[in-house]
Amino acid sequence: MQLRSSAEIAADILKRVRDRKPRVHCLMNSVVQKFTADGITVVGGIPSMTSSQEEIESFVAKADALTINLGTLDAERRKVIRMAVSVANAEGKPWIIDPVHCDYSPSRLAFALELITLGPTIVRGNAAEMALIGSVGGAVRIQTGPVDILQQGRRRAEIANGHPWMAKVTGTGCLSGGVIAAFMAVEQDALTAAASALSVTGVAAELAARHARGPGTFEAAFLDALSLIDKDDILQHARITHDEN
Amino acid sequence: MQLRSSAEIAADILKRVRDRKPRVHCLMNSVVQKFTADGITVVGGIPSMTSSQEEIESFVAKADALTINLGTLDAERRKVIRMAVSVANAEGKPWIIDPVHCDYSPSRLAFALELITLGPTIVRGNAAEMALIGSVGGAVRIQTGPVDILQQGRRRAEIANGHPWMAKVTGTGCLSGGVIAAFMAVEQDALTAAASALSVTGVAAELAARHARGPGTFEAAFLDALSLIDKDDILQHARITHDEN
Amino acid sequence: MQLRSSAEIAADILKRVRDRKPRVHCLMNSVVQKFTADGITVVGGIPSMTSSQEEIESFVAKADALTINLGTLDAERRKVIRMAVSVANAEGKPWIIDPVHCDYSPSRLAFALELITLGPTIVRGNAAEMALIGSVGGAVRIQTGPVDILQQGRRRAEIANGHPWMAKVTGTGCLSGGVIAAFMAVEQDALTAAASALSVTGVAAELAARHARGPGTFEAAFLDALSLIDKDDILQHARITHDEN
Repeated sequence: MQLRSSAEIAADILKRVRDRKPRVHCLMNSVVQKFTADGITVVGGIPSMTSSQEEIESFVAKADALTINLGTLDAERRKVIRMAVSVANAEGKPWIIDPVHCDYSPSRLAFALELITLGPTIVRGNAAEMALIGSVGGAVRIQTGPVDILQQGRRRAEIANGHPWMAKVTGTGCLSGGVIAAFMAVEQDALTAAASALSVTGVAAELAARHARGPGTFEAAFLDALSLIDKDDILQHARITHDEN
Repeated sequence: MQLRSSAEIAADILKRVRDRKPRVHCLMNSVVQKFTADGITVVGGIPSMTSSQEEIESFVAKADALTINLGTLDAERRKVIRMAVSVANAEGKPWIIDPVHCDYSPSRLAFALELITLGPTIVRGNAAEMALIGSVGGAVRIQTGPVDILQQGRRRAEIANGHPWMAKVTGTGCLSGGVIAAFMAVEQDALTAAASALSVTGVAAELAARHARGPGTFEAAFLDALSLIDKDDILQHARITHDEN
Repeated sequence: MQLRSSAEIAADILKRVRDRKPRVHCLMNSVVQKFTADGITVVGGIPSMTSSQEEIESFVAKADALTINLGTLDAERRKVIRMAVSVANAEGKPWIIDPVHCDYSPSRLAFALELITLGPTIVRGNAAEMALIGSVGGAVRIQTGPVDILQQGRRRAEIANGHPWMAKVTGTGCLSGGVIAAFMAVEQDALTAAASALSVTGVAAELAARHARGPGTFEAAFLDALSLIDKDDILQHARITHDEN
C-alpha cells in the first residue's frame, strides 16, 4: 500500500509540473547548463540560467524555485548566489543546493556551510560530500547513491531507482537537482517533492537504458524518457519507501 | 510558382554555404555554445565562440558574419558585444541579434534597444520579446513562432516549417540564429537569407522527427538532418511565402 | 609485429585507465566542457573542470594529469592556467596543451609560446596551429589531421585511425586531449601514451560511425564506443606506426 501510494503521489506531482510549467532558475557551472536546461524543459518546467549580478534578482523574482550548484566557484559567483538566495528567501521560494565536489576544495565547503545557515529547502550531495556537510538544520537532506537516502527530522525516505549509466553522463545529478526544484515548485512538502522527483528521474533512466547501447545514446534516451514517462511507468517501476523514526 | 522558387533559392544558398564555408563568430551564452557550434558546422560553416575582450576584434575581423545572443549579460559581456559590433560595422559584415529573455530583465532590454541603434542586419525574437523591442529600423525583423514572420519595410515573408520538439531542446533558436548568420554571409539580401535559413532549419527538424522517439534523440537527429538535407528535401517540404505590402 | 605490438600496448594502457580511474583536471573553454568530461568519464577517468582562481590549486593537486585548452582566453584565465601549470610542475604531474585557434589570435599564440617554455609534456594542434608554434622543446609534439603525426626528438609515430565525422562535432579534439591526459596519468612514456590514446579514440570513432546516420547521432555513438571498446577492437583496427629517425 505504502509503495503504491508514494508512486501515485509522484505521478500526480509530475502531472502538476506538466500542467503548471514552473519556472526554475539555475545557478549552475557552465559544464552542465544545457543538459540541466533540457532536463527541466522535457519534464515540463521552464529553465533560466543567467549568473549575471545585474540580472539575477529579476530572474529569481520571476522563478518558482531555485537550484544552486557550487561547481566552478569564484568570488563573483558567490556574490550572485547570495543575491539569489536573498530574493528567494524574501519571497518564500524554495531552493536546493548541491555542494558538488566540496570534498575537493576547502573554499567550496566553507561556502556550502555558509549557505546552509541561510535555510535552504533541500541540500543534496553524494556520501563524501554529505559527510563533510554534516547537519543541514531543518532542510531535507539527500544523500545520493545507488539508493538515495532522504531525511528531514524524524522522517526518512529511500529511493531505489536509477541506472549505472547515470554516473557515466556528466550532469545527471545537476539535472535531477533541476527536476527536484520543478517538483518543489508545485508541491509544498519538500521531502515528498524530492522523493517523487528522484524516483521519476530514476525510472526514466531505467526505461532509457532499454533504448541505449552505452552512455552516449543513454543520454539522449534519458531526455526522451523524461518527456515520455507516464503514470503507468511510475506505478510499475517506482521504488520509494518512507519511514518515520 | 512563388513557393517553388523560394525553395529553390533556399537550396541554392545552402549549397553556397557548403561550398564557401563561411566563418561565423558567435557571442552566445555558455548554455548553448556547443549546440550552436555543432549546428553551424554541420550546415557547412565554421564557428568561433570567444567572448574575451582581448581576442574579440581578431576573431570578428576573420569572420564573415556575426551572431549575438543576449543571454547571461553582464557589464563585461556588453563591452565585448559593443567591440564586436564596431568591427562588424566598420568592415561591412552582417550581424544578427537575438534579445533572448529581454522580457525577464530590464537591463537586457535596454541593451537590446541600444544595439538596434547600431544597425543590425537582423533582429529576431519570440512574440513576447519582439513586442518589447518594437521597431528595428532598416533591419529585417523576425518574430519566431509556429509560423515565423519576417518583415523589412514593406516586404514580408512567412515560414511554416518546424517541429514542436524544437521548443523542447534548449538552444534551437540560438542554433538557427547561427545558421541565419551563415546564410547571410553568402547572400546579400538579408530577408532572403533569413527566410531560406529558417526554412532549411525547419525542414531539417521535420525530417529529424521521423528518426527520433522524443526530444533527446530528436536533438541528435536534427544535427544529422542539417548535415544530410539536400535540394530535393527542401523543394518537397519548404513552406515559404513572400508578400509585398 | 610492430603494428600488433603497438595495438597491444594501447589496449593495455586503456585497461590501466579503467582500473585506476585517473583524475584529469581540464582547463577548457565553456563550449566543450561537457563533451570532454563525458569522454574522460566513459573511457574510465574522473574529470574535473573548475577554472576558478581560488580553487584551481586544490583541484590540480588532487589530479593525476592536466589538460589545457586555450579557447576563450582572457587575463584571468591566463592567470589560472599559470597557477595550474605551476602546481603540476611542482608535483611532477603530466600536462598537455592545445593551442586551439592560435592562428586566429596573436595574444593566444603569444601565450601558447610562453606556456611551452614551462615544459609541457605534450603540445597538440592542427597543421595551421603547429606551423606557428614551431619547436616544443623536449615535449611530445602532435600534429593532428587525417593521419596524426607524433614526434619527440628522434622518435616519431603516426596514427591512421579516425573518421571524417569527428571534424563535424565541436570538441572531439578537446575530448581526445582529455583522453590523452588520462593515458599519460597511467603511462610514463608520453609518446606511447599519446599514440595509444589517439588510436583508441580513432578506433572508437570508426566503430561509432557504423551506428550513426550523421554527425549528431555519431556524437552519442562515439561516447558509447569509447565506453564499449575492448582489446579485440583495438587489435583489429588500430593503425599505429613507430619510427626512430
